[in-house]
Amino acid sequence: MKISKRGENIQPSPIRKLKPYADKAKAEGVHIYHLNIGQPDISTPKPVIEAFHNYDDEVLSYGPSQGFLELRRAIVDYFKFYNIKLNEDNIIITIGGSEAIHFSFSVVADVGEEIIIPEPFYTNYNGYAYFANVKIVPVTTKAEDGFRIPKIEEIEKKITPKTRAILICSPNNPTGVVYTREEIESIIELAKKYDLFLIGDEVYKEFVYDGLKHTSLLEFPEVADRVIVVDSISKRFSCCGARIGAVITRNEKIYQAILKFAQARLCPPSVEQKAALAAYRMSMDYFRDVRKEYQRRRDVLFNELKKIPGVVLEKPQGAFYMIVKLPIKNAEHFTIWLLTDFRLNNETVMLAPGEGFYATPGKGKDEIRIAYVLKENDLKKASNILIKGLEKYKTLYD
Amino acid sequence: MKISKRGENIQPSPIRKLKPYADKAKAEGVHIYHLNIGQPDISTPKPVIEAFHNYDDEVLSYGPSQGFLELRRAIVDYFKFYNIKLNEDNIIITIGGSEAIHFSFSVVADVGEEIIIPEPFYTNYNGYAYFANVKIVPVTTKAEDGFRIPKIEEIEKKITPKTRAILICSPNNPTGVVYTREEIESIIELAKKYDLFLIGDEVYKEFVYDGLKHTSLLEFPEVADRVIVVDSISKRFSCCGARIGAVITRNEKIYQAILKFAQARLCPPSVEQKAALAAYRMSMDYFRDVRKEYQRRRDVLFNELKKIPGVVLEKPQGAFYMIVKLPIKNAEHFTIWLLTDFRLNNETVMLAPGEGFYATPGKGKDEIRIAYVLKENDLKKASNILIKGLEKYKTLYD
Repeated sequence: MKISKRGENIQPSPIRKLKPYADKAKAEGVHIYHLNIGQPDISTPKPVIEAFHNYDDEVLSYGPSQGFLELRRAIVDYFKFYNIKLNEDNIIITIGGSEAIHFSFSVVADVGEEIIIPEPFYTNYNGYAYFANVKIVPVTTKAEDGFRIPKIEEIEKKITPKTRAILICSPNNPTGVVYTREEIESIIELAKKYDLFLIGDEVYKEFVYDGLKHTSLLEFPEVADRVIVVDSISKRFSCCGARIGAVITRNEKIYQAILKFAQARLCPPSVEQKAALAAYRMSMDYFRDVRKEYQRRRDVLFNELKKIPGVVLEKPQGAFYMIVKLPIKNAEHFTIWLLTDFRLNNETVMLAPGEGFYATPGKGKDEIRIAYVLKENDLKKASNILIKGLEKYKTLYD
Repeated sequence: MKISKRGENIQPSPIRKLKPYADKAKAEGVHIYHLNIGQPDISTPKPVIEAFHNYDDEVLSYGPSQGFLELRRAIVDYFKFYNIKLNEDNIIITIGGSEAIHFSFSVVADVGEEIIIPEPFYTNYNGYAYFANVKIVPVTTKAEDGFRIPKIEEIEKKITPKTRAILICSPNNPTGVVYTREEIESIIELAKKYDLFLIGDEVYKEFVYDGLKHTSLLEFPEVADRVIVVDSISKRFSCCGARIGAVITRNEKIYQAILKFAQARLCPPSVEQKAALAAYRMSMDYFRDVRKEYQRRRDVLFNELKKIPGVVLEKPQGAFYMIVKLPIKNAEHFTIWLLTDFRLNNETVMLAPGEGFYATPGKGKDEIRIAYVLKENDLKKASNILIKGLEKYKTLYD
């Protein structure tokens, strides 16, 4: 009586697996600054909370598998702001961006087939690759190159007869890079040349700084048939717990296949869809302040961390993450040590070790991912702890 | 650029695929009685609705991947009523019973491995089998035998080196059968003999009539390690749209593997979990009235349908479904015809064709599944339409 190999081998979330150490520290009364998880502290917009208060259906019943029509229409309207023309039948509401990833992987690839993804990448792609039995083929990007897309020949080398799609995440989790139009176009050329699908994880598209512009895969009519976009309200409206996302495609066959996957799980949560609708009906002005807030936080954190001798770190342009290469050998050991051994005024900091964001064994061992989802003052305190901790750690272990 | 075979071949929900015909009839002003889908019309309990009204977190944030501790503890308490002892670390909250099925399939079986299930069975097992690339091996049960579990030798014949588990659903969707303790014990013996897991879909356990008692797989300590139970609040509390279920196991390895699957999708919806908590905190008296109501509906429907000449139909003992064998050749054709051509006082009825509930090709073609989720008076009208429609249909097609 053995459990399945996929159950045995799927990696635990590297972001969540250090939780027991954090729990222990908390139980001892230590305050922890969480830089390890992309849980924003930005208040959920009032209209979202009010939507829960206004809920008054007699029966909390199933909705359509593709999600409520009203919500899909609101998303169509929202994309108009970005000059992207969709219709409601291009959109299937999913249970978080997570399910959109799962559906996308499952619809482009069969068991053992391959999806190329620049690494470091969002760790849960790994989880879903195991779950869907597809293989992620990583193309390594480097801290020293600012994690830009590598030369197109590097990606081309990874293409095999089993390759079905290339996934690009921009603004990028975990690197904070926003790909240029030219970078995106080079990937598109490759997809056309080798007849591949393009999966775009664009859940951070509002979070682009310094006046830069996000380029969406949905902007290219010549690959309309190849493109599947993963979307989510989690970060957009600070609604991570609502578990409402979307998968967007203009390819009718893809849409119909995903709809069949969606029918198997019946429907996304009904009341949380109503809350999402309320969020989408807000003015786009909402994002202006949020964007400013994150840009300020990024600046604070970047300026602090740049002071670390030997650090490798480019200023991120989007999302709310950065990958920081530290002058140590084992960032996971350092992360655990911060939780178990290091305190500054009875406070410490929790990081996400970089290794979990890579598929290539051994990569990212000296890196950490930081999410700047805390208020400016807390960020300053957290980076001070990180810096002081690192100094101490180096005297002990390096 | 071809989509995956699993995306191509997964069957559309047989319950939902006839929706376009229903939509068309509705657009023409025809009233449809929905006997096709297990969407109860019982009011969602007030404490559930009030939980939404009381929601006031500042940030709608991620919860734990295994679900809120409070909710898991409430489920532990609830099972005490059935003399089933669990602890909170036996429970992972899932996104509906659907996700619990998906997790269960994925954790016991790898690609191409087999799970034995008595058919007819809940159609979405098929969807998840495709999605998880496992093979369902059906054991046919028959209307003429009241859909009881077949002789154990019949099941034994289906066991191969690839068999990993037997799934039993009791009270059964779609047959309404409640397996006896002896039937369950015979399956347990088989699982022990061939070293298999046992998946119990027990989401209808409150809905057992005529003073019968539901037997849970969780009641057998000698197979505590083999058992995974799929649970859900959807029907229990008339909360289908909440998408809150649970997977329950005392096998620590299974638990940890499912937890890793659960981490990949981050968490179940947070506010809907709070609503579920409110439901579990109600008195168990709640079920007494609900049970009475369904039993009355069953009696009404059974007595009406028994009048049909040539019908094969045993009185269901639980859940709120029955499979009815009709004296016609093609129940799907009949179902569509009811929607497109037949009206009684500008009303018609929607059924679920039986074929979709079987994995064996050709089975169930002359059967329909009926969900008795309507008020007594509506049920009477609906069965009258069904009976009159059938009379008319037979003059035209049989």
